[in-house]
Amino acid sequence: MNTGHHEASWRLPESDPYVHVDPGHYVRLARIAERGAFDSLFLADSPQLWGGIGQRPAGALDPLTLLTALATATEHIGLIATASTSYNSPYDLARRLASLDIVSDGRAGWNIVTTAGAEAARNFGLEREPPHAERYARAADFLDVALKLWDSWEDDAIVADKAAGVWGDDRKVHPARHEGPYFRVAGALDVPRSPQARPLLVQAGSSADGKAFAARYAEAVFTAQQTLADAQVFYADLKYRTERAGRNPEHLKVLPGIVPVIGSTEAEARAAERVLAEHIVPEHGLKRLERLLQLAPDSLELDRRLPEDLPPESAVEGARSRYTLVVSLARREQLTVRQLIGRLGGGRGHQTFAGTPEQIADRIETWFTQGAADGFNVMPPVLPSGLDAFVDHVVPVLRARGLFRTEYGPRRTLRERYGLPRPANRYPTPSHG
Amino acid sequence: MNTGHHEASWRLPESDPYVHVDPGHYVRLARIAERGAFDSLFLADSPQLWGGIGQRPAGALDPLTLLTALATATEHIGLIATASTSYNSPYDLARRLASLDIVSDGRAGWNIVTTAGAEAARNFGLEREPPHAERYARAADFLDVALKLWDSWEDDAIVADKAAGVWGDDRKVHPARHEGPYFRVAGALDVPRSPQARPLLVQAGSSADGKAFAARYAEAVFTAQQTLADAQVFYADLKYRTERAGRNPEHLKVLPGIVPVIGSTEAEARAAERVLAEHIVPEHGLKRLERLLQLAPDSLELDRRLPEDLPPESAVEGARSRYTLVVSLARREQLTVRQLIGRLGGGRGHQTFAGTPEQIADRIETWFTQGAADGFNVMPPVLPSGLDAFVDHVVPVLRARGLFRTEYGPRRTLRERYGLPRPANRYPTPSHG
Repeated sequence: MNTGHHEASWRLPESDPYVHVDPGHYVRLARIAERGAFDSLFLADSPQLWGGIGQRPAGALDPLTLLTALATATEHIGLIATASTSYNSPYDLARRLASLDIVSDGRAGWNIVTTAGAEAARNFGLEREPPHAERYARAADFLDVALKLWDSWEDDAIVADKAAGVWGDDRKVHPARHEGPYFRVAGALDVPRSPQARPLLVQAGSSADGKAFAARYAEAVFTAQQTLADAQVFYADLKYRTERAGRNPEHLKVLPGIVPVIGSTEAEARAAERVLAEHIVPEHGLKRLERLLQLAPDSLELDRRLPEDLPPESAVEGARSRYTLVVSLARREQLTVRQLIGRLGGGRGHQTFAGTPEQIADRIETWFTQGAADGFNVMPPVLPSGLDAFVDHVVPVLRARGLFRTEYGPRRTLRERYGLPRPANRYPTPSHG
Repeated sequence: MNTGHHEASWRLPESDPYVHVDPGHYVRLARIAERGAFDSLFLADSPQLWGGIGQRPAGALDPLTLLTALATATEHIGLIATASTSYNSPYDLARRLASLDIVSDGRAGWNIVTTAGAEAARNFGLEREPPHAERYARAADFLDVALKLWDSWEDDAIVADKAAGVWGDDRKVHPARHEGPYFRVAGALDVPRSPQARPLLVQAGSSADGKAFAARYAEAVFTAQQTLADAQVFYADLKYRTERAGRNPEHLKVLPGIVPVIGSTEAEARAAERVLAEHIVPEHGLKRLERLLQLAPDSLELDRRLPEDLPPESAVEGARSRYTLVVSLARREQLTVRQLIGRLGGGRGHQTFAGTPEQIADRIETWFTQGAADGFNVMPPVLPSGLDAFVDHVVPVLRARGLFRTEYGPRRTLRERYGLPRPANRYPTPSHG
């Protein structure tokens, strides 16, 4: 959401390298997305400043804060903020998300992350990140109590009987009384039930732990997939797991990321892609790659391939699914480290696709109709121009093919836009039957 | 900030009892305050739903979330959010406040509280609130690390050299490396330095611990004072302590609360006050009073005075200064419990003053010129009408007397409006001398 999803975008002549501390920039982006009738804005996050500020724009506004500021500057678009279950308290975060749902009139979403990385852990009093499985166990306990808190108030708890001096019905407010393995929370949420009852629940880890978690809790899943075949396998697996967890698989939407490099001809798109790649400083990418692969500094060489003896995914305590994706990509396409960095620079593992608006629409249509995606997380390499181009040139093609809405229509919540029901409250009072 | 600061305001015919979950309500209030050229909006808070929802509008939006939503709907007004040092992590809260300062273009303020009450503690995994002194010790450690984090980035850390591919100067970013009694935080804040460098720091506890804390850290202090004499003593004491702490006493502003009940005649104002008092349900006030005084349920009687044998302030682990204020008020004016509840219903300890606009302006002028206040926290008993009336009728009198600005003038930060300097960074690089 600053100068673009491509790490070198800030170096282009069109880019303002100070834009990520300009609130007007985000309002402009949100309004372009609303012009395109997008479902939602999504902000990734990790609470740490890793690797210094030398290489590219660093220092991200807190996503919930930024999206809350956009709530009053927009009308329709959903606002999906990343927040960590490892470094928040459930009472506080549940309250902030319910508050965002109220101030946005039903447009709040939460991208649930467990936060990999020792740097984040050391900002919160720990020496290192908790192990992968423990992070997910804590996340499950976090969700269990947050879901209780969002049910604290029944929908009709407010009575507002002025004559009798009775504002609310205390029988319709329910303390959490949660005693879990990680969290103890006694009281009811101090925010009335919000328009969506709770935020749209989103998840993005594609490891085994991550998929099990998603099947149980998530309503949308962001995922990085490089090939149609991989995306189809992931899609089918997640839908199957969701059904096995006793849920309707249509109530979990799979949303791969796509980094569209748009040109009026294919040659123009490829040229734009080359310009971006030429602005990457490979030494910076090398450091990030070593970190992702949990290798010691200086263990990779730019013009050689990855070592053969990398550990298996299960030995990784960090971002597992991204690890496997990167290693597979390098092996499948026999890339040197330099080439791999070029491929990752655009979307950090998400598919980059350069082409004409029709070619990009073809790719989207194929994935959408061939069981690989219910929708897409569009990640323009350069902002705002890449978002403008997508809305002005790709969206009309999708609309002409009947694949995307032409306008928002009457006001609906984010959950309704995703085709999801409003959750029922777990505490029906006897008068409700 | 819902239907008004008087606890019975929601029962008036003019009040919408659902208004506190209507984001438009808050935007309207903020715009009235900007019409009056007020310095700031302030939201008190405690993360708990105490005492049920039967009596009056309950369930408050998270203040930082609500004020962030108002940032994009307003232009000038400061946004002061209450947040607890007992139930937040410094890295996260420092980041959210810096983010609000950026999205509001320099209008963020933080009312620092240690949060009394077992109900809040039990929402965050504790059995009861930590002792008063320990809460303040934790608050000091919290501030020490937050102040380091807000200095993480020097003002000129961003270089933005596109040609060289160098975005920032890593020598001008400083990890906190904080190892305090309560908090360990290793890294630098992942948000660039904000327009005010840090939020305006506000404090509201008037206990001995609270005043010592304010003298060390606060730039503004909200306080509840019932009489001019008490307010003068408090004002002089706090300025003296600030000077003793090595700070300029003018850099700490003392802001007593006032609940103005405005009438076009004094009789009309007194009638409005009576109508509000008649809508109080005394049994509800009784329960709250027993809680504040840390008495067992049913230990007070409505038509008798307070017991003689109440414990001294130092034995209270909750909200100490409010305890002493209430006991002193009851003893000084020889009030029955019922009368005391009537007095507290309007402003929970803040002075209620009923009169004409001129009389209210007289009161304000006296306190301002007689060493009792640098400004006021205006708490209308009924909203939005009471704020409208203050802006339309009291503010013009104050302006005619030269006591208050007529317009905002050129854009300034909240700190500049309070007449405070922008803090210097603790880490000047050698090139700065």
